[in-house]
Parts: sequence; C-alpha cells; structure tokens
Amino acid sequence: MKPQIKIILSNFFFEYETPRQVLVRNKKVAVACRIIQMGVLGYIIGWVFMYEKGYHAIDTAIGSVFTKMKGVSLTNISGEERIWDAADFVFPEQGASSFVVMTNYIATVGQQQDKCPELPDGKNKCTTDKDCDKGKYKRQMTGRCISNTSTCEIYSWCPVEDDRQIPDPAILLTSENYTLFIKNSITFPHFNVVRSNLVESVNQSYINTCLYHPKTDPLCPIFRLGDIVELSGFSFSEIARLGGAIGLLIDWDCNLDLSIRHCEPKYEFYGLYGTGRNDKEKPSLGYNFRYAKYYVEKGVEKRTLMKVFGVRIDIIVNGRAGKFDIIPTLTAIGSGVGIFGVATVVCDLLLLHFVTKKDFYKNMKFKHTEIPEETPALP
Amino acid sequence: MKPQIKIILSNFFFEYETPRQVLVRNKKVAVACRIIQMGVLGYIIGWVFMYEKGYHAIDTAIGSVFTKMKGVSLTNISGEERIWDAADFVFPEQGASSFVVMTNYIATVGQQQDKCPELPDGKNKCTTDKDCDKGKYKRQMTGRCISNTSTCEIYSWCPVEDDRQIPDPAILLTSENYTLFIKNSITFPHFNVVRSNLVESVNQSYINTCLYHPKTDPLCPIFRLGDIVELSGFSFSEIARLGGAIGLLIDWDCNLDLSIRHCEPKYEFYGLYGTGRNDKEKPSLGYNFRYAKYYVEKGVEKRTLMKVFGVRIDIIVNGRAGKFDIIPTLTAIGSGVGIFGVATVVCDLLLLHFVTKKDFYKNMKFKHTEIPEETPALP
Amino acid sequence: MKPQIKIILSNFFFEYETPRQVLVRNKKVAVACRIIQMGVLGYIIGWVFMYEKGYHAIDTAIGSVFTKMKGVSLTNISGEERIWDAADFVFPEQGASSFVVMTNYIATVGQQQDKCPELPDGKNKCTTDKDCDKGKYKRQMTGRCISNTSTCEIYSWCPVEDDRQIPDPAILLTSENYTLFIKNSITFPHFNVVRSNLVESVNQSYINTCLYHPKTDPLCPIFRLGDIVELSGFSFSEIARLGGAIGLLIDWDCNLDLSIRHCEPKYEFYGLYGTGRNDKEKPSLGYNFRYAKYYVEKGVEKRTLMKVFGVRIDIIVNGRAGKFDIIPTLTAIGSGVGIFGVATVVCDLLLLHFVTKKDFYKNMKFKHTEIPEETPALP
Repeated sequence: MKPQIKIILSNFFFEYETPRQVLVRNKKVAVACRIIQMGVLGYIIGWVFMYEKGYHAIDTAIGSVFTKMKGVSLTNISGEERIWDAADFVFPEQGASSFVVMTNYIATVGQQQDKCPELPDGKNKCTTDKDCDKGKYKRQMTGRCISNTSTCEIYSWCPVEDDRQIPDPAILLTSENYTLFIKNSITFPHFNVVRSNLVESVNQSYINTCLYHPKTDPLCPIFRLGDIVELSGFSFSEIARLGGAIGLLIDWDCNLDLSIRHCEPKYEFYGLYGTGRNDKEKPSLGYNFRYAKYYVEKGVEKRTLMKVFGVRIDIIVNGRAGKFDIIPTLTAIGSGVGIFGVATVVCDLLLLHFVTKKDFYKNMKFKHTEIPEETPALP
Repeated sequence: MKPQIKIILSNFFFEYETPRQVLVRNKKVAVACRIIQMGVLGYIIGWVFMYEKGYHAIDTAIGSVFTKMKGVSLTNISGEERIWDAADFVFPEQGASSFVVMTNYIATVGQQQDKCPELPDGKNKCTTDKDCDKGKYKRQMTGRCISNTSTCEIYSWCPVEDDRQIPDPAILLTSENYTLFIKNSITFPHFNVVRSNLVESVNQSYINTCLYHPKTDPLCPIFRLGDIVELSGFSFSEIARLGGAIGLLIDWDCNLDLSIRHCEPKYEFYGLYGTGRNDKEKPSLGYNFRYAKYYVEKGVEKRTLMKVFGVRIDIIVNGRAGKFDIIPTLTAIGSGVGIFGVATVVCDLLLLHFVTKKDFYKNMKFKHTEIPEETPALP
Repeated sequence: MKPQIKIILSNFFFEYETPRQVLVRNKKVAVACRIIQMGVLGYIIGWVFMYEKGYHAIDTAIGSVFTKMKGVSLTNISGEERIWDAADFVFPEQGASSFVVMTNYIATVGQQQDKCPELPDGKNKCTTDKDCDKGKYKRQMTGRCISNTSTCEIYSWCPVEDDRQIPDPAILLTSENYTLFIKNSITFPHFNVVRSNLVESVNQSYINTCLYHPKTDPLCPIFRLGDIVELSGFSFSEIARLGGAIGLLIDWDCNLDLSIRHCEPKYEFYGLYGTGRNDKEKPSLGYNFRYAKYYVEKGVEKRTLMKVFGVRIDIIVNGRAGKFDIIPTLTAIGSGVGIFGVATVVCDLLLLHFVTKKDFYKNMKFKHTEIPEETPALP
C-alpha cells in the first residue's frame, strides 16, 4: 500500500486544482457585475473596515466612581438662620456613584413613640370610633376617633409629619451653586488598560480653577449642580422643590490603536424615569425619601424626621474600547468573501436569464454529463 | 504603456469570469446534495434570521433604579409598644437599587466606651488572668479575668452585645405586608432609546391600586415584600428571622423594529448566594449587619447598637435590545454563503468517492495540465 | 405549463452542478498553495476553535455582592482610650459592594449653628471688615473681620473644623488586621446558571480558618485589609493616613462545557484613579469624606463632624461564560470557508502571474466566449 499513499501525497502536494472559468465578453453583464462587486468591496472596506472598524476586538469597561459635593447654604426659616454643608445635604455621605443632594425638606422635630391623631389629609376622616377599625391595613390604629382633627388615633412617631404643603420656593435654592467633583476610573480587563477621567490635560492647576462646560471645558471633572440640572432638561427651581433624578453618563469610546491620550471621557446628562431626551413619555414628577436623626432626650428616644426632596444623580459609566485583533479582521474578511460569492451568484443570474444570448452562455458555462461533449463523432 | 493599461481596464470592465460547471445527472448525489443545501438554507433563514434575529444589531442597557418601601409595623416587647416606619427599617434610606429591609434585630441600648467582660459564648472561658493575654489577636484585652462570667475583660462598647439568642419569631414579622415601589429607567446608548418601567399601560390610576402578580399584574411596579420572598423560593418566617438576600432581576428584551410599546420589563426573583434556582448549591443562611445610633447623654457619648437581620434586595437590570442593521445582516449572509461552500464540498466528496461512476465524473470535473485533453489526436 | 414545471423541478432535484477544475501539476505553485491553505486551516482550527473557542456562545454575568468587615481597634488620644468596631468604621454599614473602611480621622466635637471666624489657612486673611464681603461666593460671611485670627466671621457649624494637620501616623493603623468577608453571587441569564464564590471546595470549616493568599488560598473569601492594600500596590501606612481607593475585581471566566465545579472566581486587586497597574498615570492622592453624627444637648442641635480618611474598596464583578452553541460554530466555519476562498484567490494570482508557463495555465483555466474553442475546425 505504501507506494499508493506516496502517490496520493504527491498528488496532494504537487498538484493543485483551480476552477475553470469562462471569460464572458458581454458589456452589459460585465459592467453590472463589476459595479456590484465594487459595491460589495466598497462596503467591506469603507463601511465594515473604516467606519465600523470591523478589525477591532471590542472590550467593555468596568468602572468605579468617586464623587464629592462642595457648597454651603444659609437658610432663614422664621428668623432662625441655619447653615447646611456637604455633611448635611449629601446622602450617602461617602461619595458613591449614586447620591442625592437635598434641595428642599420638611422637618418634623422631636418625634417620639406615642399615640396621636392621623394627619387630616381629606381621605381619612372619621366621626365615631367605629370608623377606626383596629385591624386596618397599613396603619396601626388604637380604635379611637379624635374629634379635634376628625381623624383616627394611631400608634406612631408623634407628632405625625405634615407634608401637605411642600415649601415653595425650595428652601435650599442656593444649592444651584454647589459643585460636584467626579473621579472615574475604568478598566478594560481584556486589554489590561486602566484609565482615569483625570486625563493628561486635566492637571492639578486646571482642576483648581475649571468648571465643566460642554463646549469650552468638556473634560473638566467639576460640575455646577445648576448646570447639570439644566443640561439634562429640567428647570432648577422645579427640580429643587419637588426633587428629580438625573443620569450623568460618562461615555468612553476608545480606539486603543491610537495613543491612549486620545481615550477621553464624554459627559452626558439626561433626566431619568421618563423626562428629558424622550419627551413622549410622561415625567414621573418628584423624588423624595425620608430619613431620621435619632437622639435621646431625658432618657426618651426621639427623632427628627426629614422628608428630603432633592436631586438624585446616578453616575453611569459606559466604556467601550476597540483594538486591532486578527480574529475579527479575518472574520470580517471571510464574511466579506462570502458576500462576494453572493455578488457572483447575482451576476450569473443576470447572465443566464436576462441576456439575449443566454443559451450560448449557458452552453459555455455548463457541461452535461449525459451527452458527453468531449467525444466528437469522428468519421 | 497607455494603450496597454486601456486594454487591461477594458478587459476588467467589459469581461467577467464565471466558473464553468458540470451538470451531473445523478439522482442519488443530486438529491443528497439538494437536501444538504436546503438544510443549510433552512438553518440560515429559519434559525439565524428568524429565530435568533441575526439581522439585529444588539445593544445592552445601562439602567438606573429608584426604590421606595412603604409600611408600618407595631411591635410589643415586654409591654413596650413601638412603631417602625420606613425611615426606621430601610437601609440605606435614599432609595438605592440595593437595600435592606429590617425584619428582626437585637438592640443593645446605651453602650458606652468602657471595660467589661466578654460574652460567655463557650469558646472564650478563662480561669486566671494569664488566660487573658493582652496582645491577643482581634480583641483588645485588659489582661484581667472576671470571675463572674469566667471571661476576659476587654476594652469595648459596654455592655457587650448578647446575640446568642436570635428572636424567634422575627420581631417585625408584619413586614410581610410592606410594599416596594420600583422605578427603573434604562438607556440603550447605541440606539439612543430611553425607556422606563412605567410603560404606557401603567398609568397613575393603575399604580395607585395595583399589586404585582406574575400572572395577573406582571407590569405593576409595586411589590409586596412577602410575595417577593416567596417568589424567590424562601419561606418568609425563616428569612424574616435570620435574614437573606434576594435578587430582583428586571429583564428587558426589546425588539426595536417593533413599536417601542412592546418593549416591556419582566420581573424575576431568585435567592442569592446559593439558594433558590439552583438547589444543588447549599444556601448560605442568614444576612445581618450591625449599625449604631450615636447620642450624647450627660456629656458622655453613647450608642444603641443594632444587629439587624433583614431581607436584602438587589435590583439587577439586564437589558438587551435588537434593531435591524445592515452589518450583522450582511455578516450573517456572508457567513451563510460560506457554509453553502461547505455543502458543495460535501456534495463533491460524495460524487467523487462514493459513486460507482466516480471515475467518469472525475474526468468530467477535472482537466489535467499534463495530458491536455483538448487536443484531439486528429489524423 | 405543468410539464415544464415538472422538468424544472426534476432538473433542480436530480441534476446538480459542480465546478469544473484544472489540476495544475506545478510543484512551486502547488506547494505554496498547500502551505497557504494549511495555514488557513491551522488558524481556523487551532486559533479560532481551540484557543479562542469560536464555537462558544458567550454570556456576561450579572452579579451581586455582600461584604462584611470584622475587626476592633483601640486608640489612645491624649490619654483617652477608645474602641472602634465595625459599626463605627465601615460606611455604609449594610454590606454594600462599595464601601469605606475608616483608617484615620479628624473629629470636630460639639459643633453647633453659630457665627465664628474662618480657619486661618493662609489664603483667607482679612484686616478690615471690608475684606469680608457679604455676598461672596461659597462662604456665608457675616461681614466682620475677627482680629484674633485675622479671618472673616462666617455663619457655620462652630467651631470650624481644623483639618490643616492630618494625624500622622494614621490613628487606626491597626486596621491592617481587619478582615473582609465577601459573598458574591453571579447569574448567567442566557444559560440560566447561578453560581456563588463559595464554591464546592470552600466549605464552612474552611471559611472558619482560611485567609486569602494569592498562591496558597486563592479561593478563600476572607481577606486581610493589609493584604488587599499591598496586593494593589499601595503602602499601608500611606493609604491609612491619606486614604485611597482600591478596586477588587472578582473575575469569572467559565467554560460551561466542562463541569460547573471548574467555574471559579479569581480575585484581583488594583489601585483606582490612576495608581497601581499603570504607573504612567499620576496617582490622585487621598480619599476622604465628611459625615456628621447629630445629637441634641439641652435642646440645642449639635453634631460631631468627622473628616474620615479611609480605604475605599470597590468590588467589581466581571463574569463571562462560554458554552458550545451551533450558531457561533457555524458562523466561524462559514467565515473560515470564506478565508479559504481568499487562499484560492492568492494561489491563482501566483499561477497566472508569477510562473513562466503562465500563458499555458491561463489558457487552461479560462475559456473565451468570443472565439469558441469547442468548435474545432474540422476538415
């Protein structure tokens, strides 16, 4: 068997097959065909390679964000002056990527565990004790109806909060001038690249003086709260009064074939939960939450309940880096060659079905196995 | 040289090559071949295009979540009634996407900086002062052994917390009826689409009355805590006592070729850290953390230490949108044509190796360069 | 018309076309061609399939992280001993994936709302009241210059914080020995796989005793704070004094074709915001934030302001799972066949342009439609 294997191997290595082709001299078909082929080639080179960078392997970033608010507000409520600094108005305090800046509040000072009548907000009137069924859902009633307020008595932190009237204008309207400093670090784990939003051009002296502006200072990591609100499409006085949520998108789109210096963040702002960009959806107005400051007075636990209205800022990092890689390149080429094959099929269709001399061309292209044309009837 | 270039160009544009082919009239091979080809075609059209939507460009969502818990619990511990509202039992308070609802606790009231004996939990007995080595790891010992408790004296917030007995049943068992309101906003940055979980059919009047139910109200953004727990496979009384972590997945799978109205969230629930879905893994029981409420009494700083057991809910947004795009479409077509090529190779293999008249077909298909068959031996 | 359709269908099903080919016996071209083809085949099989697992469908994980710090520090500031436990030094307390461990602080005890002179930090000197313009940006001045400190009087929480001197060494330097316990749960929604970092080999008895070490205990979920800091490239005494941010990356790279047991996390550590891995970028030194503990003393609201320096740890989950899937497999094959087509084009180029007998081969390969060669001039 050995010599036979040798022949097969020698045939395999020293002989190579290439398809036989007909060169069709037909202007119409040839021009149409070349235009289709050049269109495909143009699409592959121009669009897939140049524009969409089909030769790029893509990695998405994992990021980490640190924030710091700065600012002081002075309020004057019925003659009592009070200062608010960052420790008072930022929640949570440790500089997370999602936080709330208080702009308005309803404080209920000195609540303690007790029984007191519900807030008469129109929906919960009672006339007799029977209206105050003990087992009722969601409220812990004592079963008594208080004639003063015409509401049921409940177990509660007393006095109950009165949030029927939201302060207007917002108490901390000067929060417009607070500044937000953002540090953002991203990692492209696939490419082993780490990058910070404090890029080369953002040095210490620049940070000390700059303020973000979409046109003039697009890389400054310090933002005025009022600017953020307005760039996201809200009116500051409205959002300050009722609260609202804003998405601050840090968008990284990096081409790592170029110098890393060109890998820079882009900041975008939009209202969350339906407002902003897409105004077909109805805005869900307002953002508020309650928190309590507990203390002990004369052995009794008390709390100051704050209903906080504020600007909630969600910092969202969206990072994407591309870098030349052989696999997507060859995949793009391979699939491009495939599309070339489609072009050839289309050309053949034209040639064999839409041309006057189509039978002649069919004869040229195809050979039938039934009537072998290679054996000419010789005399 | 100019005329030659002209000839080359004219050849290029007016002449086009198409492969010559043999039409093989062999039923077996032809049928086999057509079946393979139609299988490939069916796969490409049916599976890649229709089912997997290979013509779609894909974008993943970046999302933002706001939560609000509502509910009140009344507890009665040795005669002392106490009311718990959202400001008391939600951590953190500002409505983050990951939060804890307290369902059980061990409170240690009035701790202050002092020296006191360790908790006798069986593992840290001492008989003489020698057993209480000052430099010991993790505890700050004074070096004395207290005979009363047979434990070492330590520097600590005193009295030390006694968490040997977890309250059973959970103190805030009524937390089952708390409700959770979720607002979720997602953005598909590539497609510039913003969407909220308060979709068109979820209007204000619906929100006021609805409660999530997987079958009847799958879009209602208000969830009963007890339902969440049960849908994720836990028993409420158990999780309330020892705590546990639940993933609440908001799943968006949007086809942006259709109306945006069909882009709706799906809510899913599962136990985290090993329980739930996949019960081959052992559940890691319990979820608890400690926090302190500080206060000053008669000039001395004190704190109330709370060991909180609760339901931790992690809201995870998983969004994916597809939209028709020319590049994935052509890539799918191109790679489909490539697979067609594989089909042709398989057919040829059948023809040239597994058919009785294979040598005849070989002769038809191949032309050898050594013995040119085109020159018939003429007389 | 029916018989004609029958003929077309019978032709379609019983006749199949295969390209005619020339077998070229030219050692140079054949060997070059085979080498190119085998290179392409090797690339497709070896690289795309074996190394890059081109037959895998990929899913990225959505994860959830729970953390718990343990440890106690004893400080002695001017004779006053004080104990710090986890409830005192972790922010936020509920075990989030991003948290801060306090290692140093500046406490300003007993602040209350008042007027007091600004801190004389060199930049804000005044000599007369005129220097203290009421409307000035960022500070709420009363308009008076205090001669004692030569600074303006401001509305503020008084006394103002004096952060000119950061305690050196860090007050809580023993925080090096704190331990961090991490529970991480990930979900591959596409594959419906849930996995926890407490893998099979990490059982309860192992957790009770183990401590993470990159070489000997790479799966132990308990980390010493000092180790984390050093593995991320910081010096502990420095970071403890000024604070810093560390990324703790939990990297899952799972091949779900194998047993799920092999799907294990890998822990990586690096400094955020410019330090660490990539030391071309300048580190942005320090991490601090302020928070306030409020209390009421004799009816007056007071607060203890803490400027906290600490180690911020951001736990980032990066999960990726691959599983055999027919679509990527066929896409890879199809695009491989496409690249094969490129190889054929290159071979033909060699044959038709760089070989001495090229005109002979051209003649063999191409048939011109103008001078039909099939009609031999017979006598």
